[in-house]
Amino acid sequence: MTPLDETISAIRPADRDAMARAREHQDRLTKPRGALGALEDVAVRLAGVAGVCPPPMPTPAALAIFAADHGVHAQGVSPWPQEVTTQMVANFLAGGAVANAFAASAGASVTVVDVGVASDLPAAPGLRARKVAYGTADLSLGPAMTADQAAAALAVGVETARELIEGGARCLITGDMGIANTTASAALICAYTGREAAEVTGRGTGIDDATHQHKIGVVRRALEANRLRETDGFAPERRDDALRALASVGGLEHAAIAGFILAAAAARVPVILDGVIAGSAALAAVALAPAAASYCVAGHRSAEPGHAATLDHLGLRPLVDLELRLGEGTGGLLAHPLVSAAVRVMHEVATFDSAGVTDKER
Amino acid sequence: MTPLDETISAIRPADRDAMARAREHQDRLTKPRGALGALEDVAVRLAGVAGVCPPPMPTPAALAIFAADHGVHAQGVSPWPQEVTTQMVANFLAGGAVANAFAASAGASVTVVDVGVASDLPAAPGLRARKVAYGTADLSLGPAMTADQAAAALAVGVETARELIEGGARCLITGDMGIANTTASAALICAYTGREAAEVTGRGTGIDDATHQHKIGVVRRALEANRLRETDGFAPERRDDALRALASVGGLEHAAIAGFILAAAAARVPVILDGVIAGSAALAAVALAPAAASYCVAGHRSAEPGHAATLDHLGLRPLVDLELRLGEGTGGLLAHPLVSAAVRVMHEVATFDSAGVTDKER
Repeated sequence: MTPLDETISAIRPADRDAMARAREHQDRLTKPRGALGALEDVAVRLAGVAGVCPPPMPTPAALAIFAADHGVHAQGVSPWPQEVTTQMVANFLAGGAVANAFAASAGASVTVVDVGVASDLPAAPGLRARKVAYGTADLSLGPAMTADQAAAALAVGVETARELIEGGARCLITGDMGIANTTASAALICAYTGREAAEVTGRGTGIDDATHQHKIGVVRRALEANRLRETDGFAPERRDDALRALASVGGLEHAAIAGFILAAAAARVPVILDGVIAGSAALAAVALAPAAASYCVAGHRSAEPGHAATLDHLGLRPLVDLELRLGEGTGGLLAHPLVSAAVRVMHEVATFDSAGVTDKER
Repeated sequence: MTPLDETISAIRPADRDAMARAREHQDRLTKPRGALGALEDVAVRLAGVAGVCPPPMPTPAALAIFAADHGVHAQGVSPWPQEVTTQMVANFLAGGAVANAFAASAGASVTVVDVGVASDLPAAPGLRARKVAYGTADLSLGPAMTADQAAAALAVGVETARELIEGGARCLITGDMGIANTTASAALICAYTGREAAEVTGRGTGIDDATHQHKIGVVRRALEANRLRETDGFAPERRDDALRALASVGGLEHAAIAGFILAAAAARVPVILDGVIAGSAALAAVALAPAAASYCVAGHRSAEPGHAATLDHLGLRPLVDLELRLGEGTGGLLAHPLVSAAVRVMHEVATFDSAGVTDKER
């Protein structure tokens, strides 16, 4: 078996029994039933992930930022030069990016993974050099990756998750860096959810109306060129098609994040998804292993229009909704204290009986 | 001058110059302009609060839970017996409530203030005994407090904020405990915003349809009995009317929280508002000193319908929106890591120049 097959076959459904016990426990705590809103669902979800109630605290957390470049950048879909991917990797490694500041706030470690940056990067502490290719091919002209490249990038994500968990991480957070990667994300979202390019293609980190229209056209051509429409006989619930979509229009970081999610699920460790890049990678992971969705927490809702469609499809409710559109894992990092607080309640809050508080329901 | 007059006269408008410098600094950081969404506004707001850029980190934070009882409880507006206020104070002091768990997560201290609980509470570490009365009178029959009681409760809030700030707190968080206090909040919201009782009266911690209708009627009667409608010649922008509304339909904890907010503003320390109780108290504070609004951060949007109207009126955007309806300061505590992360960005993130990252805008 490949590491991917091994990982997928190890993924079990969330533990319904632990979830039921978590719901019952929530109802005994000194608060009105349901008063913690969506955070009660998070605590229940994490009990299902771990298979125990209360679930373990999701600390320490580990952020992995998967960096890669995109052949489609040549189509002029981003106002940022491609070299910014390389420059931002250096910024992450120097501790100067927003992701570093948020990770410090959340007490999360930061690992940067070169899974496909277009330049040669000098070795550095905190950098995992796992380059599969010097960026993808142009997805609007044909497949972005070969099947072997996609498999290799998936394996990089699996391996990264495994090592972080072996190193003690009890919660993984997805991060990404790759100029033009919202274009690949939009194409993946179309392929896996059946939505139209115009519905899910956004302005990424900031483009004007004309570039936005052009970008929608690029996504549409990518789906045609790679025969990823229903009318092409494409069906993402078939494993071969799911893999082919990822290779055809995904980025190397998307494939790595999909592997990262699958390995977290296999290890029964929760994974907080950042924004639209992570969401589109999660669509690939869930197409390959539907049970993996139960192991994901949606960190935030990004400003990208495709993200809401993605979260809908995954059945996930985002915890933070502040119009962030940065990537890097920033939305996932901001959600971590919320997840942590939700779980802490299960460990530390008194019950009506233990605290001698009158319960209105009795 | 009374402590209240002294506090109000010390409140200055937010520092527009520091805010402008904060916006410029945000635009030089290694991220697309505006990519941190609402968090950029938080950082700018905190620069205006402190009058410096970057603003100081909002740590350590201090939560004050103001506890009091309500005469209107006798009208059957809550399914919870009044003794739960006393029981929950004991739970806070023992560290067993959700607010304690969230405070531990946020690294915030917890101070419990008895400003008007209906029973005698034993002295305990962490409890400030500042009882103004054994609960309020029934607001649906006439004034809940005398003018002197309201002034005394405002002073308790002022004094509590001052002492926490003298003790090193760099961010205050409002908390409350008082069975039936969403009824008082709804009446305050009607008085200060001119909304109808049916629009802003919610189900609090959980009531059925019949009790909800009854509660709306109680709020309506309170406004009539206390002559707090526009047709009564009531105008909350007049200081006397603003104070009269607070005394007539507020709770002792609402008055204390209003004082707490005003003292934070006077000391140029940010105050994170919890939910609808804090919001309605903030309406009173802002009616007395309009500039105080700039010193508030809306921690979350509660499930209570009156809260959205309140935030609208205050011009505040909530940071967390997860259908919490617990009170105690829980929504404010959850927002603290978000506020903290927003400010940390201003201190730690590299600029395009310092990091050697190409800026698309140049």
